[in-house]
Amino acid sequence: MSSTLGTLFKITTFGESHCKGVGVVVDGCPAGMNLTEADIQTQLDRRRPGQSELTTPRDEQDLVSILSGTEFGKTLGTPIGMLVANKDQRPGDYGEMSQVPRPSHADFTYQMKYGIRASSGGGRSSARETIGRVAAGAIAEKFLRERFGVEIVAWVSSIGTIDGPECDLEAITREEVDRSAVRCPHRLAARQMEEAILAARDAKDSLGGIITCVCRNLPVGLGEPVFDKLEARLAQAMLSLPATKGFEIGSGFAGTRLRGSKHNDPFIIKGDRLGTLSNHSGGVQGGISNGEPVYFRVAFKPTATIGQVQQTADFSGRQVKLAAKGRHDPCVVPRAVPIVETMAALVLADLALIQKMRS
Amino acid sequence: MSSTLGTLFKITTFGESHCKGVGVVVDGCPAGMNLTEADIQTQLDRRRPGQSELTTPRDEQDLVSILSGTEFGKTLGTPIGMLVANKDQRPGDYGEMSQVPRPSHADFTYQMKYGIRASSGGGRSSARETIGRVAAGAIAEKFLRERFGVEIVAWVSSIGTIDGPECDLEAITREEVDRSAVRCPHRLAARQMEEAILAARDAKDSLGGIITCVCRNLPVGLGEPVFDKLEARLAQAMLSLPATKGFEIGSGFAGTRLRGSKHNDPFIIKGDRLGTLSNHSGGVQGGISNGEPVYFRVAFKPTATIGQVQQTADFSGRQVKLAAKGRHDPCVVPRAVPIVETMAALVLADLALIQKMRS
Amino acid sequence: MSSTLGTLFKITTFGESHCKGVGVVVDGCPAGMNLTEADIQTQLDRRRPGQSELTTPRDEQDLVSILSGTEFGKTLGTPIGMLVANKDQRPGDYGEMSQVPRPSHADFTYQMKYGIRASSGGGRSSARETIGRVAAGAIAEKFLRERFGVEIVAWVSSIGTIDGPECDLEAITREEVDRSAVRCPHRLAARQMEEAILAARDAKDSLGGIITCVCRNLPVGLGEPVFDKLEARLAQAMLSLPATKGFEIGSGFAGTRLRGSKHNDPFIIKGDRLGTLSNHSGGVQGGISNGEPVYFRVAFKPTATIGQVQQTADFSGRQVKLAAKGRHDPCVVPRAVPIVETMAALVLADLALIQKMRS
Amino acid sequence: MSSTLGTLFKITTFGESHCKGVGVVVDGCPAGMNLTEADIQTQLDRRRPGQSELTTPRDEQDLVSILSGTEFGKTLGTPIGMLVANKDQRPGDYGEMSQVPRPSHADFTYQMKYGIRASSGGGRSSARETIGRVAAGAIAEKFLRERFGVEIVAWVSSIGTIDGPECDLEAITREEVDRSAVRCPHRLAARQMEEAILAARDAKDSLGGIITCVCRNLPVGLGEPVFDKLEARLAQAMLSLPATKGFEIGSGFAGTRLRGSKHNDPFIIKGDRLGTLSNHSGGVQGGISNGEPVYFRVAFKPTATIGQVQQTADFSGRQVKLAAKGRHDPCVVPRAVPIVETMAALVLADLALIQKMRS
Repeated sequence: MSSTLGTLFKITTFGESHCKGVGVVVDGCPAGMNLTEADIQTQLDRRRPGQSELTTPRDEQDLVSILSGTEFGKTLGTPIGMLVANKDQRPGDYGEMSQVPRPSHADFTYQMKYGIRASSGGGRSSARETIGRVAAGAIAEKFLRERFGVEIVAWVSSIGTIDGPECDLEAITREEVDRSAVRCPHRLAARQMEEAILAARDAKDSLGGIITCVCRNLPVGLGEPVFDKLEARLAQAMLSLPATKGFEIGSGFAGTRLRGSKHNDPFIIKGDRLGTLSNHSGGVQGGISNGEPVYFRVAFKPTATIGQVQQTADFSGRQVKLAAKGRHDPCVVPRAVPIVETMAALVLADLALIQKMRS
Repeated sequence: MSSTLGTLFKITTFGESHCKGVGVVVDGCPAGMNLTEADIQTQLDRRRPGQSELTTPRDEQDLVSILSGTEFGKTLGTPIGMLVANKDQRPGDYGEMSQVPRPSHADFTYQMKYGIRASSGGGRSSARETIGRVAAGAIAEKFLRERFGVEIVAWVSSIGTIDGPECDLEAITREEVDRSAVRCPHRLAARQMEEAILAARDAKDSLGGIITCVCRNLPVGLGEPVFDKLEARLAQAMLSLPATKGFEIGSGFAGTRLRGSKHNDPFIIKGDRLGTLSNHSGGVQGGISNGEPVYFRVAFKPTATIGQVQQTADFSGRQVKLAAKGRHDPCVVPRAVPIVETMAALVLADLALIQKMRS
Repeated sequence: MSSTLGTLFKITTFGESHCKGVGVVVDGCPAGMNLTEADIQTQLDRRRPGQSELTTPRDEQDLVSILSGTEFGKTLGTPIGMLVANKDQRPGDYGEMSQVPRPSHADFTYQMKYGIRASSGGGRSSARETIGRVAAGAIAEKFLRERFGVEIVAWVSSIGTIDGPECDLEAITREEVDRSAVRCPHRLAARQMEEAILAARDAKDSLGGIITCVCRNLPVGLGEPVFDKLEARLAQAMLSLPATKGFEIGSGFAGTRLRGSKHNDPFIIKGDRLGTLSNHSGGVQGGISNGEPVYFRVAFKPTATIGQVQQTADFSGRQVKLAAKGRHDPCVVPRAVPIVETMAALVLADLALIQKMRS
Repeated sequence: MSSTLGTLFKITTFGESHCKGVGVVVDGCPAGMNLTEADIQTQLDRRRPGQSELTTPRDEQDLVSILSGTEFGKTLGTPIGMLVANKDQRPGDYGEMSQVPRPSHADFTYQMKYGIRASSGGGRSSARETIGRVAAGAIAEKFLRERFGVEIVAWVSSIGTIDGPECDLEAITREEVDRSAVRCPHRLAARQMEEAILAARDAKDSLGGIITCVCRNLPVGLGEPVFDKLEARLAQAMLSLPATKGFEIGSGFAGTRLRGSKHNDPFIIKGDRLGTLSNHSGGVQGGISNGEPVYFRVAFKPTATIGQVQQTADFSGRQVKLAAKGRHDPCVVPRAVPIVETMAALVLADLALIQKMRS
């Protein structure tokens, strides 16, 4: 249940860590779009492990194969199946952990929910599940870019206690973001973040952080009143990512401290359209895009799997000590940047197609 | 589109500010439950305007009528239709506003999306839309309480810049919350918050704030991996409420600043079940409830409609001054407390029914 | 569960026989359409009991009230709530039946499924449930007519063993259909059908029959490949009506006896479009409308509730004799004509909105 | 759009004739079930071409590979991805047809709907799309058999104008069905049918036919009132199959000719449960299974692709002659037998899981 997202631009993901592969079916992508594996591989490369010393040293190529839905490099309007083979298809590597549910991991809840769980690697709670999302999101993003000129850019705005300065929402680009391995566009902050991650790694510990994302050039009118408000769909999408603990749009939690007279965004004329002077709303009013940049922030907790010895209990309640072996990310936040962009693109593409029924 | 929420416990709301009424259809409520209007009216009374001097002086009784789905005080398992008549069924009171979209309100986006909008009162973005939700949520909550002993309690944890101290998640009750009109369980903070709201009202201004909510006694196993994680569904539900700008669960944004060794929740034995020593996770791991209290916070922006004169533009782009007339809440946060509880109940009832397929 | 139909043009019905009322919420109707109760009442009048001596003598006015979603006679794009009050709101009239499940009625299965059932009148399996559908269908039909010029006409093509001759699919009108109380457009057959129904009534027995329906002027391209083929959605919609036992489109069951060389519909030029010479396909190819008339037939079993004494068993298995009291239709087929049109309109409106995402 | 079926037991298919492969994702299959490729291959083998001289001589092995969702031969409760590679991955073999839409095929409607279509083989309207369904259906069937003892058996009851005699719904088995290549359990009728198919093949023509299916040992209570009635969901599922034109359940179209007193199914005691003496209802009352066998019939038109020369028009409206080249089934009905069983299993598994929320 629940591996499907969207109403008209609909995706269904599948796959665990050590099965034959992970993948996705994209149903509802418009026909006649140019599409080859190269369009998809770029974002997959940005999310894969082994890109830098900041991430797990596992080297996964994660090459995508389009199984269906295109012919001669064009989409047919039919479901696009995509598959990324798992390099390591041997279940059982983490076998020794099996009697001890890892703290703040999904071992315990999966076991209780299903009465069984993948012997290793986190099953569907594994970060590898996001591969299917990213492959689908690359298509959604291409559609949005070609049809509306939409630009989606995410970056790391904090790692642990190190905050980067604010960025220019109107101007920031992926190129700027990718200049540092940590994907913070500010050189100094980026260096501090990288040092913090390496220090955490050496201490067999982990760090969390915050990703900010902006979506520019959205058409006015995306988002459905009530339960499918643009921000509601974004919040669901972001909180569906592993390790996320929070979402805020526009002024967010800090905006609760302002008075209405300060917080309201007055209308002004911007070229041939009505815009707003400030953008505390984050580009949405009443759940519907208003033409200003949509921006939001997503909180990621520190990675649960750490090499330090932890005092915990096994399934029988017996006190045990646990220290994770193997190759783990001390901080997943830099690799989560393209995944946040992905989820935004998936939500926006779906809402854009829904809005077309009103044209 | 989009007025329906849920998979098995499914609700569909309808109604604007000045039509004949607002209501809801609840489809999927289990049969054989005792249910009369009295079970529903309690939460509706907690959300209605005119409860205290903190809210709009509009006095709306909001009496609910069950149209279908019960007989002799028991649910039949069939859709429960419910209706609350609108006292004021005259569209047009706010007519003078019609050429000027109110800043940070939905006037502009509705007009652009639909090419038409309700002449007054905000249409589906109006707070009256939440009446149907609250009526449905009262049923969901009764189901959860009777079947599992679930307790859901929300309260105001900040208003503007005034923060209440932390509450005991294991113990706090609605009675404690309702002791103050502002619904903050701490006497001193409550008094300060009330003064701040009255001061904002007198200044023809408005305030926002934060609501915290805890759900106790949830069974283990609620929430579906990937897109219907418990926290993803909660986030969608909360961000679907008018005026919300953020959601965080467990350690939330602050948790991003902790190291993994500190943030992880070690397992310990709690009576006959495995629990966790700390609860930074907020009761969910891998998107699935683990038996610990689920708690989360929701950010509400300051009310957009204020009596102060605002400089803005009309639909034609002409600069105008706008001052809202009529009766407005200087702060919606206290009245939103039962609505946050409602949305939590709706999400949890749906996930509880879905999980039953695995029993 | 399951009282909701449609993806973009979405309806949710509620109500039993003896509760306060029956109704529907229509979500997704385009904004800016002229709509008042008068647009809806026409089809409700065609379905209500008491229209002629052929039907139950119960005289139900079934006046519809629009609760929400319109203002000044125009749709707002928001959910349209509609309610028809039940004249007889006293549960219990059929109380004596309660220990004896009526043969071929839903008493037994509802009791087993829910552990409870409405004390009277069939609950959600009652024909009154279709009132909400018809109200919604009138809106769907208006949308299709105004946007595309779609015409939907259904009629009675057989009652019991009496078959009417074939009708001209291109030309038949509702006026022709309504000339006889039995809604068969052929005068002689209509008279025979009416006599058969009156004879069955006098024998305390009941009759079934077949309704044929044609949908003209559909745009090419409606229907989604695979599970939402136009004919699949129509089949579901028709078999969701009480008392239906079969559906066939185009050549249907008889077409299985033809050879491909005879059955195939060759293409020819028709004005400025490609059409087909014959129409065994019934206006669909690969599940998608091809611009030719869509026509189909629906089988209705004889009414289960009859006045004759029936030998059957009560819930405890004891042999009993049962004779229905009260006012029953000896044949529901004439009144089902507008309901079949309704279901066609609901399916087509939804598929038309879905197809707009491709424009 | 629309490649997804089901609410809790949910499948999503993908793939065309000449892409890399066809497949399916099954989401919602209960955890802990034994499952390997062998469980799935049996039904795939029954549907594949080249089984006998009655079908297309194309020899497709159609070996299924489970990509995800199982470990050590047990289901994990996570999505089960399955893939069948296409043997012939060269698009373009049918290239010469591209300017001439094949009569009664989906070429024209796909082209009009999408503005593009697969260069060959029918795209998603191809029979190969059903491979994913059959793979998924094998899992659904295993679940139903192990959990409830459900037995689903379909057979050919007519080919063209040759009707087989009635079968014993309580006793018929797949072994009896598979004794003849045409899958009619009556020896004499089977021989006549086979001769008819060979004669049609030699005449470069094609035949249709009717498949009957029975589902035994269903628990009471499956099916949801109103739009998800058991027969409504079956009707949708069957009419979603390529080449189907009709569906009838129980007494079907013939039942419309009976009087109610004859058609009604009186209750009698059957062992420890209440059953019915006759079964005109086809095992459903009010859309809900009543414990009697569910049986229904599905009409398949004669194959559209024939070798005979047909007079038709090309896309520009010019009159042309068309004769299909290549390898075609003169009659798809025998191979459709396991596909009808598949669709029944998919519907019933979903409704069985939904009903569990009431336990």
